[in-house]
Amino acid sequence: MKGVILETTRDAQIVDISHAVQPFDILDGALTISQAYSHFPSGTVHVVIVDPGVGTARRPIILTGDRHLFVAPDNGVLSLVYAREERLSVRHATADHYFLQPRSNTFHGRDIFSPIAAYLAKGVDPGRFGEEITDFVRFAAPRPKPIDERTLRGVVLKVDRFGNLITNITPQDIPKLFQEKPSGFKIALGKGQVTRLCSNYAEGGPGEAFGILGSMGFLEIATNRGSAYQLLGVGKGTDVNLVLDGA
Amino acid sequence: MKGVILETTRDAQIVDISHAVQPFDILDGALTISQAYSHFPSGTVHVVIVDPGVGTARRPIILTGDRHLFVAPDNGVLSLVYAREERLSVRHATADHYFLQPRSNTFHGRDIFSPIAAYLAKGVDPGRFGEEITDFVRFAAPRPKPIDERTLRGVVLKVDRFGNLITNITPQDIPKLFQEKPSGFKIALGKGQVTRLCSNYAEGGPGEAFGILGSMGFLEIATNRGSAYQLLGVGKGTDVNLVLDGA
Amino acid sequence: MKGVILETTRDAQIVDISHAVQPFDILDGALTISQAYSHFPSGTVHVVIVDPGVGTARRPIILTGDRHLFVAPDNGVLSLVYAREERLSVRHATADHYFLQPRSNTFHGRDIFSPIAAYLAKGVDPGRFGEEITDFVRFAAPRPKPIDERTLRGVVLKVDRFGNLITNITPQDIPKLFQEKPSGFKIALGKGQVTRLCSNYAEGGPGEAFGILGSMGFLEIATNRGSAYQLLGVGKGTDVNLVLDGA
Repeated sequence: MKGVILETTRDAQIVDISHAVQPFDILDGALTISQAYSHFPSGTVHVVIVDPGVGTARRPIILTGDRHLFVAPDNGVLSLVYAREERLSVRHATADHYFLQPRSNTFHGRDIFSPIAAYLAKGVDPGRFGEEITDFVRFAAPRPKPIDERTLRGVVLKVDRFGNLITNITPQDIPKLFQEKPSGFKIALGKGQVTRLCSNYAEGGPGEAFGILGSMGFLEIATNRGSAYQLLGVGKGTDVNLVLDGA
Repeated sequence: MKGVILETTRDAQIVDISHAVQPFDILDGALTISQAYSHFPSGTVHVVIVDPGVGTARRPIILTGDRHLFVAPDNGVLSLVYAREERLSVRHATADHYFLQPRSNTFHGRDIFSPIAAYLAKGVDPGRFGEEITDFVRFAAPRPKPIDERTLRGVVLKVDRFGNLITNITPQDIPKLFQEKPSGFKIALGKGQVTRLCSNYAEGGPGEAFGILGSMGFLEIATNRGSAYQLLGVGKGTDVNLVLDGA
Repeated sequence: MKGVILETTRDAQIVDISHAVQPFDILDGALTISQAYSHFPSGTVHVVIVDPGVGTARRPIILTGDRHLFVAPDNGVLSLVYAREERLSVRHATADHYFLQPRSNTFHGRDIFSPIAAYLAKGVDPGRFGEEITDFVRFAAPRPKPIDERTLRGVVLKVDRFGNLITNITPQDIPKLFQEKPSGFKIALGKGQVTRLCSNYAEGGPGEAFGILGSMGFLEIATNRGSAYQLLGVGKGTDVNLVLDGA
């Protein structure tokens, strides 16, 4: 993919954001790009390839957002970007004279998405690649649900490379918890229980699982200098039941 | 290695092709570079270090091909490049004033190959590094063998990061299979059996192993949104017996 | 982190040194940067983030050395750099108008260290970021200890990606061994025993563990085309007892 990009636009500056998106995991890809892209300079072209449907009729798309461009399969991997951008223009890239020939059925990252990205980086207008569409695939990230007055049920969205369990619970979902930092709460997940919020990882005691507001804006379950994933024996998809003590 | 290159030629654009070549696996290195290099711009210098013989008398070589330059140990890691290039000039790099001093016996990637690559990228002529040789090490990739009129025996060359099993069988080896896509065939490998060719990964049913023509030009054994490696419990070096039904 | 750097200084050339430092392992980080930095061009800014204390009062620091700049948390991760540089000026970076706002408690690599690095790369004087300090955290790498006249006890500092066991024993610690290469010595570690020094990996016999002077300047325990880590079943922190035969 990098060779294809450089062949078209030799002075492109190519940056790897992550080598660790789980294979076939569109939500993981969506989380990864949504957390990283806004820190890049205006005009950056982001190539986002999590593409289990490669070779099928799923469309290659170009998203023009507020300050950035994105090239991706139309499978929802840009859903969390859509949610953050005010200006959205999505095009179905059909202009196959930009694509590599011959084209494989199994590696469109190389044959379709990289060439599009290279020409965009070179300044070719997105309009040259195809028509605007509005029926692009878009999913909402799973949101935590109130179970009763004192209980919120979230889920582990992903495990990062340190073993932190990143949940889908945000401070907006439960302002009381994050503002007042009460001691009277419990988070149950797997065989473990969390009863404390820390403001940094080093606050945690040895072998203690605690909650922390992570850099992605979500409640994370973590442990000091260790892996909460290993400590608690749970991973992606695990329910996270947060119970506040009665007032 | 990157520091050494930049120290000599500060505006070099360094691109990592792969961090996932298996240690000591010259064939894996040969497959990796042979699939990637041709997509890079003319004049690219490829540094290919899979070097279990580092510190022995095996020679550092420079290959000048049709459009690219390569720096590598003379252990066959460029064999699949030799097979694809029309013009080949291979030199034994002996001009050690280009090398780092002192030189270790265990990290020639840093001490020998990176400096050569940097000076080549800077425009130093390959002829300045040493004499042309013709007895460079070159192996043929293992080819599938006909066992009888209806049976072809190939082998799994590598497992990619998705768990796809990449065999050494190409459409040229068995044109009937890929052109007519008959249903009457079986591929046996490990505890599994494959009876269908798909044209993309998403065509596969849940838990089904199927054949597919991959982006490297080889028959791959794959499964939809999963790892054929895990599904079938077989890996690199496994025999792949392809049997066509009788005509 | 890369986005933040490019946002400030768009023509920065960003190079990844390693993706394989063990989480929370300050010594591993210290070894990694100390082996790599000196090969980079003068003026390179090295961003070294192994930061289990992120969000606590540990200080962000800027080190100006002989030819390079370093940005890191003040937790000792630069200890082995301090040991190699003649000129050392360390500053506590307090000028938070350079930092990202808002600032997380869990990802200072993005919010503090990358912005500092970007402005340094852009030419902002280190003095603009804060006052010089002399009480920065600095540890000595563990040194081998003589147990008796014939025995030296070292330790495995790290396991590299090939499975080589990198000890803390250097040729200076035991000149006789490396200069005369006597056959009469034993290195005991785990369930294995090493009785031979090789000058390159390929000299080793099948399944043999041997000693070798590695590219980091340390005695390594290795095996030919395999992993000494797997062969011997020992890893980081294992004692290495080196016994010379009586003279």
